[in-house]
Amino acid sequence: MKEIYMDHVATNPVHPEVLDAMLPYFKEHFANPLSIYEPGIRAREAIENARANTAALINAKPKEIIFTSSGAETNNFALKGIAFANQNKGKHVIVSRIEHHSVLNSARFLEKQGFAVTYLPVDKHGIVDPAVVEKAITKETILVSIIHASPEIGTIEPTAEIAKITRQKGIISHTDAVASVGNILVDVQSLNVDLLTLAAHQFYGPKGAAALYLREGTRIVPLIYGGIQEGGRRAGTENVPAIVGMGKAAELAKRDLQKRINHVRPLRDKLISNALKIEKVFLTGHSEQRLPGHASFVVAYIEGEAMLLLLAGKGIYAASGSACSSKALKASPVLLSIGIPAHLAQGSVVFTLGEGTTEKDIEYFNEVFPQIISRLREISPYSKGWEGTGDQTCTAKK
Amino acid sequence: MKEIYMDHVATNPVHPEVLDAMLPYFKEHFANPLSIYEPGIRAREAIENARANTAALINAKPKEIIFTSSGAETNNFALKGIAFANQNKGKHVIVSRIEHHSVLNSARFLEKQGFAVTYLPVDKHGIVDPAVVEKAITKETILVSIIHASPEIGTIEPTAEIAKITRQKGIISHTDAVASVGNILVDVQSLNVDLLTLAAHQFYGPKGAAALYLREGTRIVPLIYGGIQEGGRRAGTENVPAIVGMGKAAELAKRDLQKRINHVRPLRDKLISNALKIEKVFLTGHSEQRLPGHASFVVAYIEGEAMLLLLAGKGIYAASGSACSSKALKASPVLLSIGIPAHLAQGSVVFTLGEGTTEKDIEYFNEVFPQIISRLREISPYSKGWEGTGDQTCTAKK
Repeated sequence: MKEIYMDHVATNPVHPEVLDAMLPYFKEHFANPLSIYEPGIRAREAIENARANTAALINAKPKEIIFTSSGAETNNFALKGIAFANQNKGKHVIVSRIEHHSVLNSARFLEKQGFAVTYLPVDKHGIVDPAVVEKAITKETILVSIIHASPEIGTIEPTAEIAKITRQKGIISHTDAVASVGNILVDVQSLNVDLLTLAAHQFYGPKGAAALYLREGTRIVPLIYGGIQEGGRRAGTENVPAIVGMGKAAELAKRDLQKRINHVRPLRDKLISNALKIEKVFLTGHSEQRLPGHASFVVAYIEGEAMLLLLAGKGIYAASGSACSSKALKASPVLLSIGIPAHLAQGSVVFTLGEGTTEKDIEYFNEVFPQIISRLREISPYSKGWEGTGDQTCTAKK
Repeated sequence: MKEIYMDHVATNPVHPEVLDAMLPYFKEHFANPLSIYEPGIRAREAIENARANTAALINAKPKEIIFTSSGAETNNFALKGIAFANQNKGKHVIVSRIEHHSVLNSARFLEKQGFAVTYLPVDKHGIVDPAVVEKAITKETILVSIIHASPEIGTIEPTAEIAKITRQKGIISHTDAVASVGNILVDVQSLNVDLLTLAAHQFYGPKGAAALYLREGTRIVPLIYGGIQEGGRRAGTENVPAIVGMGKAAELAKRDLQKRINHVRPLRDKLISNALKIEKVFLTGHSEQRLPGHASFVVAYIEGEAMLLLLAGKGIYAASGSACSSKALKASPVLLSIGIPAHLAQGSVVFTLGEGTTEKDIEYFNEVFPQIISRLREISPYSKGWEGTGDQTCTAKK
C-alpha cells in the first residue's frame, strides 16, 4: 500500500546524515562528557559543537543554549524556572489560550503554587493581539509566554511585537517555537524574546533532544537539579548521541531552510485550495501568517477520528489537532478558542508536509480526500442534525 | 595505546544488541506513538514491549514503569512529585547525606518551597541505620528517600529494612537505584519501596532513557506537564529509540545478571587486594555490602585529579567520586559524610569494572597503579605536610 506521511508536525524521521553523525556516540565514543580523560573530552567537544550549531540556527550564542529532552520538558522548565526565580518580583504570568498543553498545564501548576495566570484570548485566526497582551500586564507580571506558531492551526504569532512590549516593561518573554524552528526563519534577536523552546525531531533531528534558548543574563531555577551539566541549569548525564544529532539537524535546517520552505509551500497551497473546494470544509488558522507546510481544516458533519482512520486506510497519515487530541479524540481547546463551535471542532484534521512530500502525493490526496468526506457524510449522524456534546476537552490525566 | 575503561559507573557503551534493536526506530518506524495510524500503533507497541521488559528486570508491573530521560530527572520527579502530591498530609522529607546531587538538590529546592528536610548521617561504611530513619520520622513525614547503592563508595544500603519501617508507618519510600539496577538483583517487591529510580545507560542501554518505578496506587504530581504520554504522568513525545533500547538492555541485564556479577566480582576483589597493599591506600565504603564491580579508595598525600590524569596517560580511565566531582574536583560530601578528613577525601579514586574488563586489564592496573602513586607522592606537597583547604564541596551552580 502507498504510504503518504502528512503528519510532520507530530514527528519526523531522523535525517540520514543526522543518524550517521549520531552513530559513533553509542558504542565507540560513549564516554561521560564530564569525565576528564580523553574520550570524555571528545564527548564534551561533540556537545559543544552541537551547541554552536543549534545556537546558529536561531541566531543565539552557544552559551544561551541549554539542552533538554523534549519540547514539553523545555516549556515546563521555562515557565516554572522563570516563575520560581522571579517570584519575589511578582506572581503573575500571562499565556494565551492556544498554548501547547505543556505550557497550559505548567501554568495551572503555578496557579496551585500561588501564582496568578491570565489566559489571553485569540482572534478567529488564532492571533494574539499585542495590545491585549499590553493591557493584561500588571505590576505583578513577571513572564509572558505566547506560542510562536500553533501546531494545530499553523498560525504564526506576532512574537516580535509582543516581545517589544515586554522588553519595554522589563518583563521576561518566552515563546514555544517547537512547531516553527526548522520550518520558518526563527531569529531570537529579531524576535527579541528572552526564552525560546525548540525540539530537534521537528526538523529531522532525533526525539529526546530539545533545547531552551535562555538569553544571557536571564536567571532561571532548574527543573532538573543534580550535577553541573549544562552549567548547573539542567542536570543529568548528557544524551550525547541525541545532542550530536540535534546539532547536525540544526546545521542542515539552517542550510536548507529556504529550500524546504520552497518545497512544501506550493504543495501545501495546492492541497488547501483543493480541500476548500469541498462543501463545508473550512481552513482553520490564518491563511497567510501560517507555517509553510501546514494545512488544517474542520469538516462539517464528520468526526476527525473517522477521517483519520479512512485516510490511514488509503495510506495517508494525518492528525486531528495535536498529538494529544489525536489520541484523546476530544474537541481541541485551540479550535474552541478561535470560535469554532464544538460540533464542528470534532471534525478537525491537520495535514503537515515535509521534505519527502511529492506532487504525486498531493494529487493522490486530492483524489482521496473528497471521496472519504462523501462516504463519511453518507453515514454520519451529524449530517442528519445531531450536533455532539461539545463540552469535551483534551487534558492530561492527573 | 592500551585503553582500559574502568569507569562503568559514569556511563557505559550501548550493547550491540541494544543498538540493533534501536536502529529501526530512527528512520523507518519513526512515527509518534500517540498517532492512531498503523506506524504510530507499532511505535506504541514497541514502547509497551520495552515497558514490560523494564518492569520484569525489577519485578514490577508494566504499568508501574514511567519512562523518563535520565536518573536525575527521575529523582527530581520522585522527590518533588511525591512532596507536591502529599503536602496536605505533611511537609517533612527524609534523605541521607550520601544521596546523589539530584536528590540532595531537589530536597534543597523543597526546603525553599516550605518543606522541612532531614539529612540523615551514615556510618563509616556509608550505611544508613534503619533505627536512625525510624527516629527521624515525625507526624509530618511524607517521604523517605535513601539511595540503594552509592556510585561513589559502592555501599549497598539496607533498603528493605528501611522500607519495612516506612511501610508500617504509612510513609512513602523512594530509592535511587541508578547505580545498582543491572549490577545486582533489584526486586521492588522484596525491597518493598514505593518508588525506585533506574537509568538505562548503567546497564548497557542508551543515555536518554531512564524510568521511575511507581507502585500502583501511589499518587504523584508530574515534573513535566503536557500531553497524555505515560498515563499523563510524564509528558513529551516519547523517545522511542531510547525506550526500545532500554527495554532490550533490561532484557539482557535480567538474562545475564548473574554472569555479569560472576565476571566482575573476582576481578574487583583482585584489584582491591592489590591496591590495599600500597601504603596509605584505604578502601572507601563497605567491604562486603558493595556493588560487585566497584572499587573505591582514598590515597593519602595525592589529589584525585593528578591520579586520574596519570592513569589516563597510561590508558586507564577512572573517576574521582561522582561524575560531578570528577569535573568539579572538589572534596566529595559523600566521603566527608563517612568521616574521611577533607585532605584525604581529595585523594579519592573510583574504579568500576564491566563486561569488557579482563584479567589482563587488572594485571596491567596492578602494575601501573603503584607506580603512579609513588611518582605522585615524590612530587606531592601533601606528603610534605600541606593538608589542603578541606572546605570545598561539589554543588551545582545556581
